[in-house]
Amino acid sequence: MKKESVVNPWEVSGEVDYNKLIKDFGVERIDAKLLARIKKHTKEVHPFLARNIFFAHRDLHWLLDEYEKGNKFYLYTGRAPSGPVHLGHLLPWIFTKWLQDTFDVELWFQFPDEEKFLFKQNLDFKEIEGYMQENMLDIIALGFNPKKTHFIIDTQHANLMYKEACKVAKRITFSTVKAAFGLNEQSNIGSIFYTSMQAVPAFLPSVIKGKEIPCLIPHAIDQDPHFRVTRDVLPKLGHYKPASIQCFFLPPLTGSAGKMSSSEENTAIYTTDSPEQVKKKINKYAFSGGRDTLEEHRKIGGNPDIDISFQYLKYLFEPNDKKLKKIESDYRSGKLLSGELKAILIEKINLFLKEHQKNREKAKKIIDKFILK
Amino acid sequence: MKKESVVNPWEVSGEVDYNKLIKDFGVERIDAKLLARIKKHTKEVHPFLARNIFFAHRDLHWLLDEYEKGNKFYLYTGRAPSGPVHLGHLLPWIFTKWLQDTFDVELWFQFPDEEKFLFKQNLDFKEIEGYMQENMLDIIALGFNPKKTHFIIDTQHANLMYKEACKVAKRITFSTVKAAFGLNEQSNIGSIFYTSMQAVPAFLPSVIKGKEIPCLIPHAIDQDPHFRVTRDVLPKLGHYKPASIQCFFLPPLTGSAGKMSSSEENTAIYTTDSPEQVKKKINKYAFSGGRDTLEEHRKIGGNPDIDISFQYLKYLFEPNDKKLKKIESDYRSGKLLSGELKAILIEKINLFLKEHQKNREKAKKIIDKFILK
Repeated sequence: MKKESVVNPWEVSGEVDYNKLIKDFGVERIDAKLLARIKKHTKEVHPFLARNIFFAHRDLHWLLDEYEKGNKFYLYTGRAPSGPVHLGHLLPWIFTKWLQDTFDVELWFQFPDEEKFLFKQNLDFKEIEGYMQENMLDIIALGFNPKKTHFIIDTQHANLMYKEACKVAKRITFSTVKAAFGLNEQSNIGSIFYTSMQAVPAFLPSVIKGKEIPCLIPHAIDQDPHFRVTRDVLPKLGHYKPASIQCFFLPPLTGSAGKMSSSEENTAIYTTDSPEQVKKKINKYAFSGGRDTLEEHRKIGGNPDIDISFQYLKYLFEPNDKKLKKIESDYRSGKLLSGELKAILIEKINLFLKEHQKNREKAKKIIDKFILK
Repeated sequence: MKKESVVNPWEVSGEVDYNKLIKDFGVERIDAKLLARIKKHTKEVHPFLARNIFFAHRDLHWLLDEYEKGNKFYLYTGRAPSGPVHLGHLLPWIFTKWLQDTFDVELWFQFPDEEKFLFKQNLDFKEIEGYMQENMLDIIALGFNPKKTHFIIDTQHANLMYKEACKVAKRITFSTVKAAFGLNEQSNIGSIFYTSMQAVPAFLPSVIKGKEIPCLIPHAIDQDPHFRVTRDVLPKLGHYKPASIQCFFLPPLTGSAGKMSSSEENTAIYTTDSPEQVKKKINKYAFSGGRDTLEEHRKIGGNPDIDISFQYLKYLFEPNDKKLKKIESDYRSGKLLSGELKAILIEKINLFLKEHQKNREKAKKIIDKFILK
């Protein structure tokens, strides 16, 4: 029996049924028509769009209507620091950077440092602060424009945020957060309030500028309940509903259920892993779609659809469609062995991480440029 | 049938039964032994103590133990701005000033500007901001020491407060606030979170100084549920439980049920009322314990126990016990008429307000000295 999957901002487990999520959450699938419309502005379509990794949205047509009228949007995404950054985290941020560059727009990057504090029993602020500093390096290393990127930290920018969060909170009942997030009477009152703080960057730039600016939120699908609530409230406060665009989770090394998770070390490749660690993790843990014996593999071929190494190439590391197609058909035919496929991925990841780690070092000197003054 | 009374931070109505409150809230009555112990330090006992207007406490003996060991306390009180200040508001603040002067201690004065925003449907932050400025003038006019008094405004000092409030909030469940404040599933999530912010000044100075400082909270009894919850949580965060001292409500002009309220104009004398307004309000609305006819009054005398004018003299305007006693016996005997009693009160109030209004004007120039930097 297939285990029931769970997807909410604090838990992703089981085999995620994305078709069911689209229906349950009420997001819209990104279709060919929308892709064509995006392409009109971006010239190139990012592989994450072409490959359906960013697969759903809310109000993207409205956002493009506004854009075409000259009403430029800004981007909002975030990271709740509670551990080291792994490859799965990078996926929406890489796409966010592409959006920033392509549309030449501002980005508000939220660090809700109180979120995981409130939702994880044994995490304290000191530990979170350490992760936050490290996480910021990973984000900066991706190349965001320091002149157009603003880091806001909930507890450190509370003078700006708390009052606005109260305006949101006044419009949300306990019943609503109970239904949207599965909270209950034993939930702590900070966790109950929290979604109000996550709503704030979806309109704070409009408050600061004194005029409404459309907002686009690229995010992994598990965060959608927050923005669903945000979208209900914001028009009541005289603000636009934020548009959003949702991506899949990068699967964990160990298979296709759940998502890559910092708290399970063997499921994740961290941005600070050494080439040897990457090699060892992929070879040892990456779930293979290959056959039990060499003979069998040569004869009936591997299954790329369940092969994690192939999935990572598709998701992140082989943007060239032709090359990806060749790897896929070679693997399916049995020409490419599982070990060979893993070797391709290991090389690609290590090449990426070498550059990323170099940029991460450089980032240490410029963190201050990113934090909102 | 006597109407059931309600006393919580957002509603005080009905004939308040203070004996029942002591039992329900679990505070201790201030007895002769405690008064004697206070007197050892203060030399004079403030009339509010001698007349039992501050009638209950939590942990005052512990606070004095610490004080006698050389571990000085600080004071914490507050004002949620949602209207003009009336005489009833002044009562705990006048006492707080006496404590500040007598013990030479710091005072943290909180302005939870989000509280009434969250609890009153039709109040917005702009209106609250206006009241807050006005309310600050009244507080400063009472003569607090600007070097030892720190105003903190929840939304403007959120950088200091929100993180600490989250630490408190993590230890409070929805069940607890439901039981303590009568909130329910339809309550907004800001109102559910709010008590965490009211807890913060009870330990913030200790966080800032990096050592535990005992805290004493003088307040009207309706605020006790907040501090009951605060006292449960703080030891879990490594802080002292705050001590507290509770006063009665100044009754409304119209009689002894409920409390003087800004939202019912005829029940309240505002600090900005003119001498004519005071005269008119007292003569027209102050509930009298006098008799229906002059003859009857001369014959059987008035009842000071239910006479609002006499109560105000006792609570606020006749600190001299001998003089108060004479007024009481003259009124009881019928020698003093209701109109004459009112005339005494009117003169006293107007004398007080003349001075207060002068100080209020001067306060305009020094607000900045009080706001925490």
